Amino acid sequence: MKKTNFIIALVFCALIAVSCKNETTVTTADENQKTEVTDPLPSWNEGDTKNAIMTYVGEVTSEGSPNFIPIADRIATFDNDGNLWSEQPLYFQFIFAIERVKVMAPDHPEWKTTQPYQSVLEDDMKKLMSYGEHGLLKIVMATHANNTVEEFEQIVKDWLATAKHPRFKRGYSEMVYQPMLELLAYLRANDFKTFIVSGGGIEFMRPWVEGVYGIPKDQVVGSSVKTEFVMEDGVPKIKRLAELDFIDDKAGKPLGINKFIGRKPVFASGNSDGDLQMLQYTDSNTYPSFQLYLHHTDEEREWAYDRESSIGRLDKGLDEANAKGWTVIDMKNDWNTIYPFQIED
Amino acid sequence: MKKTNFIIALVFCALIAVSCKNETTVTTADENQKTEVTDPLPSWNEGDTKNAIMTYVGEVTSEGSPNFIPIADRIATFDNDGNLWSEQPLYFQFIFAIERVKVMAPDHPEWKTTQPYQSVLEDDMKKLMSYGEHGLLKIVMATHANNTVEEFEQIVKDWLATAKHPRFKRGYSEMVYQPMLELLAYLRANDFKTFIVSGGGIEFMRPWVEGVYGIPKDQVVGSSVKTEFVMEDGVPKIKRLAELDFIDDKAGKPLGINKFIGRKPVFASGNSDGDLQMLQYTDSNTYPSFQLYLHHTDEEREWAYDRESSIGRLDKGLDEANAKGWTVIDMKNDWNTIYPFQIED
Repeated sequence: MKKTNFIIALVFCALIAVSCKNETTVTTADENQKTEVTDPLPSWNEGDTKNAIMTYVGEVTSEGSPNFIPIADRIATFDNDGNLWSEQPLYFQFIFAIERVKVMAPDHPEWKTTQPYQSVLEDDMKKLMSYGEHGLLKIVMATHANNTVEEFEQIVKDWLATAKHPRFKRGYSEMVYQPMLELLAYLRANDFKTFIVSGGGIEFMRPWVEGVYGIPKDQVVGSSVKTEFVMEDGVPKIKRLAELDFIDDKAGKPLGINKFIGRKPVFASGNSDGDLQMLQYTDSNTYPSFQLYLHHTDEEREWAYDRESSIGRLDKGLDEANAKGWTVIDMKNDWNTIYPFQIED
Repeated sequence: MKKTNFIIALVFCALIAVSCKNETTVTTADENQKTEVTDPLPSWNEGDTKNAIMTYVGEVTSEGSPNFIPIADRIATFDNDGNLWSEQPLYFQFIFAIERVKVMAPDHPEWKTTQPYQSVLEDDMKKLMSYGEHGLLKIVMATHANNTVEEFEQIVKDWLATAKHPRFKRGYSEMVYQPMLELLAYLRANDFKTFIVSGGGIEFMRPWVEGVYGIPKDQVVGSSVKTEFVMEDGVPKIKRLAELDFIDDKAGKPLGINKFIGRKPVFASGNSDGDLQMLQYTDSNTYPSFQLYLHHTDEEREWAYDRESSIGRLDKGLDEANAKGWTVIDMKNDWNTIYPFQIED
């Protein structure tokens, strides 16, 4: 079993729709006249990173340019955890799973004396981690399966509507990156089709990504459990089974892209070694392509971690980005805003 | 192993783009003025079937209507074989496989004396069929796998560019149903998102569905083989393995829809018992939904078959359509044109 990379969720969010309007106006001058240009990426500081993105998009969308890419081929794929929203101190989907164990515990009295559930109920994270991936998988399966697709969707929505992040005391759907919301919108405005390609659960993301990122449910690729179709009293139901179907991480990402999208991306964005194969795959496109790594360098406003982190480790990816000249976002210096709620009204 | 339902392909097709312009103009009168209305479904005869479709679409897209469906939920799924293009005398994808065995035979001298390949090389279809599904699967795996995604795409395109249907002597991509092309365009014009959900191979369809049906590659759900991501001399490749991954037929169709689309359709169109679960699933939508079965009743212009056919059997589905009042297309009486090439210039 490959490392199971878990992800999380957040919902609705008129809040973000509102904060997305945070566009600034830049006045530029040429010899003859002043032109007002609306900056599509106001939360990005001026500099090499922003320049690289906008130069690429400008070139590949200019008809007549030797680098022009037809609209159908403008596929952009984004990792989610640590790339569109935060992933510390734990993948949000794993926080969801832990909180679910506690909610479900009254129906499972045996968990009080059965590991790894016992360590969750006793808030003993160190002990929980000692059970390794197998232990985590048990927690996830116990909390994500044995229900219908509709039931699970409602559970995710209900959790997102009330759960708060331990550090920022905000809903998890508020912990998305304002600069990435702008980048998604900017790419779509230039006729890119934006997809999430995440190690997180596909059915954990679908309930909320439409409202939060503007990405339709059918443009989400993620990890999944096996499912079963049953007719109960003449009513068709899809049941989620406690068995892994697909892990959309590392080499699974290009495979997931090929399976779900059927076309090699020209733009790929990630933040960890789990995204490396997706970026390599995109880099092999015969069209001009763009590889973007987000480097978490801002301990004060978000978190700072890379080569040694057990969550979102960026080690081999950083080396390859440097070797190949991929664009690396330095969060601390390239972003003037992290979260939408930090924008002054 | 469930029955493997194979599908087929055709490409490019400016021809169809041209023939799609075959719209007629209907003049209607109300008390005060004459209004010219362009008929979006000119290849459909006036009658109950066409009325049912247009009434449904009109109702669910009228803001303020109690039956209004938001755009994001307007998901329409179409079977392909025998529903968007013909499937006789054999699923076109199976014809492709048989022809591939012959092309590949020089590299496989052992096939001359090894079944089921030998029966293919000797054009002994009866003997080939005697090897059952297991034999067919061998033929498919030998001809569809052990190559990269790009190589297979090129093989499909090359075949479609030259292969001719035995009865009509036309390219297979010309054997699509003009009325269904009109229906797809009509639904899209009303903000439905159209998907193919087919038992055929997903990578057999993707090379050509965009040009022929106007359906993007990422809106195709189909059967698949397992794949593997490898780096060869620093170049990432996705290899197709000779092992089934997913059969998108019968109960597999709602599972495929849930996995790839993540949303229950409101409109589903099929022609065989292999589509029954997809139609049942759609029928359980809380939004008003539409179930459409195509009944092959036109021996002269196409083929006539239903309950006893080994290809595209429509038996249980016909009973359920009658019991539930689903709409059934009588091809002979409901369609004034079958194929685009039959339209007079």
